[in-house]
Amino acid sequence: MKGIRKIAPYIPGIQPSTAGMIKINTNENPYPPSPSVADVLKNFDSEQLKRYSSLDNLALKKALARKHDVHPEQLMIGNGSDEVLAFSFLAFFNSEDPILFPDITYGFYKVWADLFRIPFKEIPLNSTFDIDFSDYEELNGGIVIANPNAPTGLFKSAENIHSFLQKHADVIVIVDEAYVEFAEESMLPLLEQHPNLIIVRTLSKSQSLAGLRVGYAIGAPEYIAVLESIKSSFNPYSVDTLAEQLATAAVEDEAYYQKITDEICITRDWFSEKLADLDFRSLPSQTNFILSTHNELNMEELYQYLASENIFVRYFSKPERLNKFLRISIGTREEMEAVIEKITQYMK
Amino acid sequence: MKGIRKIAPYIPGIQPSTAGMIKINTNENPYPPSPSVADVLKNFDSEQLKRYSSLDNLALKKALARKHDVHPEQLMIGNGSDEVLAFSFLAFFNSEDPILFPDITYGFYKVWADLFRIPFKEIPLNSTFDIDFSDYEELNGGIVIANPNAPTGLFKSAENIHSFLQKHADVIVIVDEAYVEFAEESMLPLLEQHPNLIIVRTLSKSQSLAGLRVGYAIGAPEYIAVLESIKSSFNPYSVDTLAEQLATAAVEDEAYYQKITDEICITRDWFSEKLADLDFRSLPSQTNFILSTHNELNMEELYQYLASENIFVRYFSKPERLNKFLRISIGTREEMEAVIEKITQYMK
Repeated sequence: MKGIRKIAPYIPGIQPSTAGMIKINTNENPYPPSPSVADVLKNFDSEQLKRYSSLDNLALKKALARKHDVHPEQLMIGNGSDEVLAFSFLAFFNSEDPILFPDITYGFYKVWADLFRIPFKEIPLNSTFDIDFSDYEELNGGIVIANPNAPTGLFKSAENIHSFLQKHADVIVIVDEAYVEFAEESMLPLLEQHPNLIIVRTLSKSQSLAGLRVGYAIGAPEYIAVLESIKSSFNPYSVDTLAEQLATAAVEDEAYYQKITDEICITRDWFSEKLADLDFRSLPSQTNFILSTHNELNMEELYQYLASENIFVRYFSKPERLNKFLRISIGTREEMEAVIEKITQYMK
Repeated sequence: MKGIRKIAPYIPGIQPSTAGMIKINTNENPYPPSPSVADVLKNFDSEQLKRYSSLDNLALKKALARKHDVHPEQLMIGNGSDEVLAFSFLAFFNSEDPILFPDITYGFYKVWADLFRIPFKEIPLNSTFDIDFSDYEELNGGIVIANPNAPTGLFKSAENIHSFLQKHADVIVIVDEAYVEFAEESMLPLLEQHPNLIIVRTLSKSQSLAGLRVGYAIGAPEYIAVLESIKSSFNPYSVDTLAEQLATAAVEDEAYYQKITDEICITRDWFSEKLADLDFRSLPSQTNFILSTHNELNMEELYQYLASENIFVRYFSKPERLNKFLRISIGTREEMEAVIEKITQYMK
């Protein structure tokens, strides 16, 4: 057969579903979405679904514009940040020069570059697993940085990103802020000075809506319009009617989400200390997960033990630098207490 | 700025929303989705949304497999048939030879070919606006046919498609069956003999779920696996949890949809006769729309008149062969009676 594409796809974390499981392997939020999401759902008339969903997603854009203090035309909405990022690669990375991203980061960047045949170069994280911006000085066709980075959890400050954006003013720099609501600050204030900055966000983590598939980009209207033209050339209605209405309700309930985000950060810091008590070493996380290692434990075996105890964390056999770590999402305090208890038992 | 993509996107029909409007411009279904969709919605616990949606969409695949008498591994589910088609272009059209599709057909085929830089050739419909398969004999990298075709409404029989598939056995032939539930037969029985056949379906039209964004492909497991690998390389979770559950409920209620589909076909044939009484000439439609023209009327003016009367139909200023036609979706009998009444008034 002619013309068949062969490609190595992204491998997501497994999605087990067993009674009583503690699922802390894909950085989902342990708390339910805002009660206002449930209200909108309850009052939704299914007859609405016979019509196409909104082309401009204006209701959701307006809610997000209020939240982030930007204009609706600075926003593009997609089916999860995965779709927004995929469209961004198509929209902005069309140069002959390679795009740059860290060797250890969200695994999908490499997959999209492969899929769209975009030349790319992976820049190794430094010895402390941090991004060193001085390693990004070569000629390039664009840059993608997750901030905080995943699966390390490490964060770059706005000051750092500001000078980085200045240095690369001739290309689009995507800053993937999937986890930023668990971090000290967003790069949003840099937008005005840096038209080359595209920030990508998701409602999957901080808004407890992984199953609803809503993400968005924030940037200069000129480049957001390019992103919209790619969306309109691929799948113009990718955000369904229910997803838009429920996401809008979530975005409008900032108080609820502030509360659960604070809770998760407190649990994360508590969990990190408890791990330290057991001689684990964890990278300082500004996300809803912890990347942790232990000198005397085989992490793959610990991963398997926990799975046998109905606790699902993430183990990466590749790349080699990660295979001595586990990435553990932050669940509720009760869940993390159970995890500490099981690890303690395992170590005895 | 380096690397910015310029592209002419697909232009969808407008989505007006005024009180009392008759919206018959984007081939939506005038009837609500099955009552079982409303039931599932009512009982849906929004806390489910904190988890990622299903990666394999197995519940929906099983329901579709039962409906179509195929195996679940012959099915790939996507965010509307637009996403399924876009992924299919990426999966199957990677040859140096141009892909072929009619010059008058679903406008998105050209847009995807452009977006993915796939060489293509548009083959003119014949003088009766039909697809003439003898015009498709040149070397090609794949073929896309909408059957029934849009916006013509014309249908090719399984016998015709069978010999066409045999002649092009070395490439993938996509048959887009978006409207097939309003036509005399599906190409499903041809799948067993023709591994090069990929059928694409949508729940937007016949299942009254345009706003939910669910479509699917049916084909040989070997090529469906390629399509899944593209989905997993782009946006693995594109069908959200609500969409999958509601779509499954819809697919399982065949009796309801048979009833409303029959109703629409009866209204279509009645409407076509009424138009003929007013000296309109319509192509014989096997869809939920009618493409119609009139020797003495300017169709753009009629389109504008109807819009001013809160009736929205579709007018294509391009291509030239279409600009003497209107495409009118079939609404309820009451809606179509109102349309006939307004056209009669206009002609006086």
